Amino acid sequence: MSIAYYNGKISSVEKVMISPSDRGVYFGDGVYDAALGRGGKIYLLSEHIERLIKNAKALGIPCPYDSSELEELLLGLYHESGEDVAFIYFQLTRCADARVHSASGITKSNLYVTVTPCAMPNPASRVRLVSYPDKRYLYCNVKTLNLLPSVLAATYADSRGCDEAVFVRDGYVTECAHSNISIIKDGILYTHPECEKILSGITRKTLLKAAFDMGITVREKPFTVGELYAADEVIITSSTKLARLAHSVDGIRYDAKSGSIGEILTKKVHFFFVNCT
Amino acid sequence: MSIAYYNGKISSVEKVMISPSDRGVYFGDGVYDAALGRGGKIYLLSEHIERLIKNAKALGIPCPYDSSELEELLLGLYHESGEDVAFIYFQLTRCADARVHSASGITKSNLYVTVTPCAMPNPASRVRLVSYPDKRYLYCNVKTLNLLPSVLAATYADSRGCDEAVFVRDGYVTECAHSNISIIKDGILYTHPECEKILSGITRKTLLKAAFDMGITVREKPFTVGELYAADEVIITSSTKLARLAHSVDGIRYDAKSGSIGEILTKKVHFFFVNCT
Repeated sequence: MSIAYYNGKISSVEKVMISPSDRGVYFGDGVYDAALGRGGKIYLLSEHIERLIKNAKALGIPCPYDSSELEELLLGLYHESGEDVAFIYFQLTRCADARVHSASGITKSNLYVTVTPCAMPNPASRVRLVSYPDKRYLYCNVKTLNLLPSVLAATYADSRGCDEAVFVRDGYVTECAHSNISIIKDGILYTHPECEKILSGITRKTLLKAAFDMGITVREKPFTVGELYAADEVIITSSTKLARLAHSVDGIRYDAKSGSIGEILTKKVHFFFVNCT
Repeated sequence: MSIAYYNGKISSVEKVMISPSDRGVYFGDGVYDAALGRGGKIYLLSEHIERLIKNAKALGIPCPYDSSELEELLLGLYHESGEDVAFIYFQLTRCADARVHSASGITKSNLYVTVTPCAMPNPASRVRLVSYPDKRYLYCNVKTLNLLPSVLAATYADSRGCDEAVFVRDGYVTECAHSNISIIKDGILYTHPECEKILSGITRKTLLKAAFDMGITVREKPFTVGELYAADEVIITSSTKLARLAHSVDGIRYDAKSGSIGEILTKKVHFFFVNCT
């Protein structure tokens, strides 16, 4: 069953209520992270927790928990849910106060967690992509609640019968609405370097590790939409869906070749997950 | 007294509770507006309502109220509060649902309103400014709940003993964390043109109207930080504080000259408010 946690209280998701004066509502003044549970373990949990703590620090949001406390809490909630494959979402917002932009002097925050059942990632599923203008802010390296541009992009993708939107900034591909993106061309894997234009994806790192292990050359450099169209294969990575190959982008199809580098890499990323959980 | 309204129910601000699954929380998937009440009237209320409706439409957020219904509701709440000078805040978020980025098929939204007492704007108060990098998204013309960059800028201003942060993008001044900004140099008023980099401020429009009335040349063109430093006067406009002159920016002071264009303009904007409320 789905369960939720808010500032020390456990209940069903439907029963949790918060104040609309929470700065998470007024300003999106909060950070979050999400991880996948399976077989009693939460995959790469310490990496997700460290990222949340780092992001909270970057924005000056008080985080009254250390990593071991968060680990114990999240694992406890996951186990209490009784679910096998589950999506664990945790969010830290700056505390309710009068609606004043400045966060000076605010020393409290609200922790909200949900555990919900979800589907087992399927490395064989292929993703339909559509490009979308990247007009986002330059804090994309921080996982905040300011996600409206991703909502607009994902809604557009949906309206076009696609699964994900590919953000394009100044002609270059950055990432997707809720995934990172990499291409393979002539045996080399290209992906946007880490910077304020993309999220430092945990599954992106796993993909790069898998590529290194296989002796595949990795180039962390921006690529253009033209290079995306001309790629041999395209890999989409996220913490909840792991690694998947693209079926098409803007209607241009990628061939599915059995035993290709892309196929081996997505299977390898999936194998890491299955092996660790 | 402060009062709040949420989807048909009136209560104290402290008593309103919402679901954390509201998309306003998860994604900042909502729009808002705010206006100033005084003497039983809400200043330029129809302009604020039209802006909210236009912004909701731009994002595809369902707005189940027409402008006359919203006007009646907001005026009714303001009167019920019993306050004289009051801040009327109204927010429309896309309805609670499973945490999925795409908003496809969502036909409901939540309306939240607060009426809180506030100080009468003082056109004679002068504002200390500090510059701050504008790394915001290119949807600044829409008044959304994705306000984290403004939070960071305002918090920085506070830490420097300043009242407002001036956003600078590629060397050009765009607007402030929660105000528009205009400069006067050699008798000409300069302000950033309306585009996706600034909010189309209602008080900004009132200021321009006041300038036109006075026969002052208005140039809606971007100006640099150097031009801001070298300005004769700087005017900050917002719906809650109306128009105020800058005291200084980055420690560089502006002379206060009695009878200056800036002083006349700020007083004129204040006069419009007092005359209409």
